[in-house]
Parts: sequence; C-alpha cells; structure tokens
Amino acid sequence: MSSQPKKVAVLLCGSGYRDGSEIRESVAALWALDKHGAEVSMFAPDGEAYDVVNCLTGQTVPGEKRQMRVEAARIARGQVESISKLKPSDFDALVIPGGFGVAKNFCDFALKGSAGSVRPDVQKVIEQFHSERKPIGAICIAPALVGLTLKNTPLTLTLGQASEAVDEIRKLGHQVELRPSSEWVVDEKNRLVTTPAYMDDQAPIAEVFTGIEGLVQKVLALA
Amino acid sequence: MSSQPKKVAVLLCGSGYRDGSEIRESVAALWALDKHGAEVSMFAPDGEAYDVVNCLTGQTVPGEKRQMRVEAARIARGQVESISKLKPSDFDALVIPGGFGVAKNFCDFALKGSAGSVRPDVQKVIEQFHSERKPIGAICIAPALVGLTLKNTPLTLTLGQASEAVDEIRKLGHQVELRPSSEWVVDEKNRLVTTPAYMDDQAPIAEVFTGIEGLVQKVLALA
Repeated sequence: MSSQPKKVAVLLCGSGYRDGSEIRESVAALWALDKHGAEVSMFAPDGEAYDVVNCLTGQTVPGEKRQMRVEAARIARGQVESISKLKPSDFDALVIPGGFGVAKNFCDFALKGSAGSVRPDVQKVIEQFHSERKPIGAICIAPALVGLTLKNTPLTLTLGQASEAVDEIRKLGHQVELRPSSEWVVDEKNRLVTTPAYMDDQAPIAEVFTGIEGLVQKVLALA
Repeated sequence: MSSQPKKVAVLLCGSGYRDGSEIRESVAALWALDKHGAEVSMFAPDGEAYDVVNCLTGQTVPGEKRQMRVEAARIARGQVESISKLKPSDFDALVIPGGFGVAKNFCDFALKGSAGSVRPDVQKVIEQFHSERKPIGAICIAPALVGLTLKNTPLTLTLGQASEAVDEIRKLGHQVELRPSSEWVVDEKNRLVTTPAYMDDQAPIAEVFTGIEGLVQKVLALA
C-alpha cells in the first residue's frame, strides 16, 4: 500500500432506496473507504430527483419535489459537491452506491431497460474514469448504469440473481454473473468491481457490508 | 452466547443528522446488531418532525413538513413500526441512534437543555426498559434523552468532549465522562451503554463504527 491515500469520488443521487441512493450501501461504502485508508469526496447532480417515494407505503408522492444533492447531503453530512465540479483527473477511483435513484435519476434504466440512456454529466464522468483506466466500484443496480454508459465495451459484472435487470444488461452484450450479496465480481480488464448488495431485498445487512467492503478493497488495490 | 437471538428494538425519528436520526449511526447500529446475531425491530413515532432542515445549507426549510416514521423508513427499508406498538416486554434491549432529531423530536433538549421534557411515548418506552433492567444503548446525543427521561436516577454516560450538552446533563446530577468517538461508556448498574459518535462532528466514520460496534456488543452481553 502506498503512503499517499487513494482519492475516491463517491457518486450519490439522493437519500433513500426507493428514490435516491440506497442509504445503507452508501454508508457501507463510506465506512469501508475510510477503514481502508481512502480519502473520499462526494458528488451529486443538482436538480430534482425523478420522483419522491413514501418509503413506508412504497407509493409515489404526487407533486412532491426533492433535490438530489440536497437529499444526498443527509448521507454526506453536508459535504457533497455538484457533479459539475467532479474532475476524474483529480481522483484514483469512482464508487457508485445503488438504490432505485440510480436507475431513475442517473439514467432511465428503471423505465426503459437496455433501451435507456444516461444523464450526460454522469455518462461523461463514468466514461472518463473508464478511459483513464481508473477503477470503478458499482454497487447493487449501479452496474446497470455502468453497463448502459459503456454500451460498446463488453463488461463482466454482477446484478445479484436472475432478474429482468440481468436480462436487459445481457442484451447489451455484457457478461452478467449471478452472485449473492456477500460476494463481488472483478472485471480486471475494465477495472470494474461490482457487488449485488440490496439487489437481494432480503440480504442481511452484515452480508451487504461484507460484499461492499470486498468491493472497496479491490477498487483500492486496482487504483 | 445463548442460542436464541437477542431481540433488540431500535428507535428512529426520521432520516438525517439535522432533523432526524443520524443516518450513519443508525446504519452502524443495524450492521453491528446483525453482525453480532441480534434480531432487530425498528420503531418511530407517528407524526411530524419538529422541523425539516436542508442538510446542504444547514437552513430550516420554512413550511416544509415531513413525517418521522415515513422518513425513518428510508433507513429501515420500509420496516418501521409505530412506537405505539413497541412493547418493551417483547424485547431484550433498546438501541437509540443519535442525530439532532433526537433532541428536537423525541424531546426538546435542543431548545431547553436540562429544563426540557420528553415525548410521553418515548419517555414510557425508556422508563420501561430501564425498570425491567434491560440494557439501553444510546448513541451521540441520545444519552441526553435518556438522562432527561431518567432525571431521578444518577446515570454514568458520555456525550463526547466538553460542550453545553455535557453541562446541561451534569445539572441533572448525571456523571458525564469525556470520551472520543471510538470508545463507549458502560453504566453496569443502570445497564446503560453510550458512545459519542458524531457528537464529534469531525470523527472519521470508521471510528464512529468502532464505538457503535463496541456499544452493541456490550448491550448484547448485558441482555
């Protein structure tokens, strides 16, 4: 391990599993990055989230609006910059926690599957980390975002067990491995590390943490 | 360790360090409880939070209302019951994460200090766990809530380093030890375990987790 801490950008899109970044996955990533000596900066897009969902009932709240970066600040304890300020050249690696917001705010995968598209600012950031051969750690549904962004590069990744999301990402030519939440998949060639986390809704939180800590350690080793 | 998992109630009051339960502390507690074999049930009061704070700017959002239990469901992934359904006799221990909401929603300590009072439903739950000699783990500012509830019982607890909160709780006759976030304080007589967590705003998240895991292990050992 080098004496210089690795600089890692973490990308958030709100705070909550149904309309933003998955809270537990985000916290697990921040914990593992700190535990293993990384220096973290958090970023989120400015602008409204696609929707606001009552996480008790699962119902969309009609008319309610929340800002992605303002809500992400709940996880970030205020320390979250606009994605417009994220310069991949300043960082050694990128980590993207999951949550439904990733498939609704960062892209429209939740609605359009493999035919979906990615927010230009997010697309640019992911493309740049990839083209600079800096590792990307993608958690839960975030591997689908990376797969949608890098459509023309065959990736190896996991999205947990068999699902519609797996079928859609395979349509794009990516290789999708079926794994439990305590494991992670490494695409050495593309420096992409993925773990299912809450793709398994019933995964015990300690197993989700095991998978995310494994992902983080691998991302830092590749950085 | 007994073969029966210990049943632990976790008390939440929203989702976010400025107006609800501190997200990272709540997640750390859930992780440590799962890792050490406990069976967790989450509870929150129904009703509106005292206020809604924009966590990016630190400013209260005038006129905005959010429900404590609905927001807590973001951390709880939907699995959070009304505190009215919490029967201490069904549980072995109680854990209360911190966050400003604890001092504004569960009681008015943030406004009135040692002269403050506690929500009757929360007061009743804490009193009952204490009187049944079941351990209580209180994180960050939550020891102040317990100290306010159990005014007539001299407790030993920590609230981190010297602060106005420490002065106010000492006025109630409690013994307050000054500790870093990686440590925890055990009041064996009252079965109360406390750790400072984000009472130190700058504490590294891995240290906060260390303190909370230590608290959880001690709570489970006392249960």
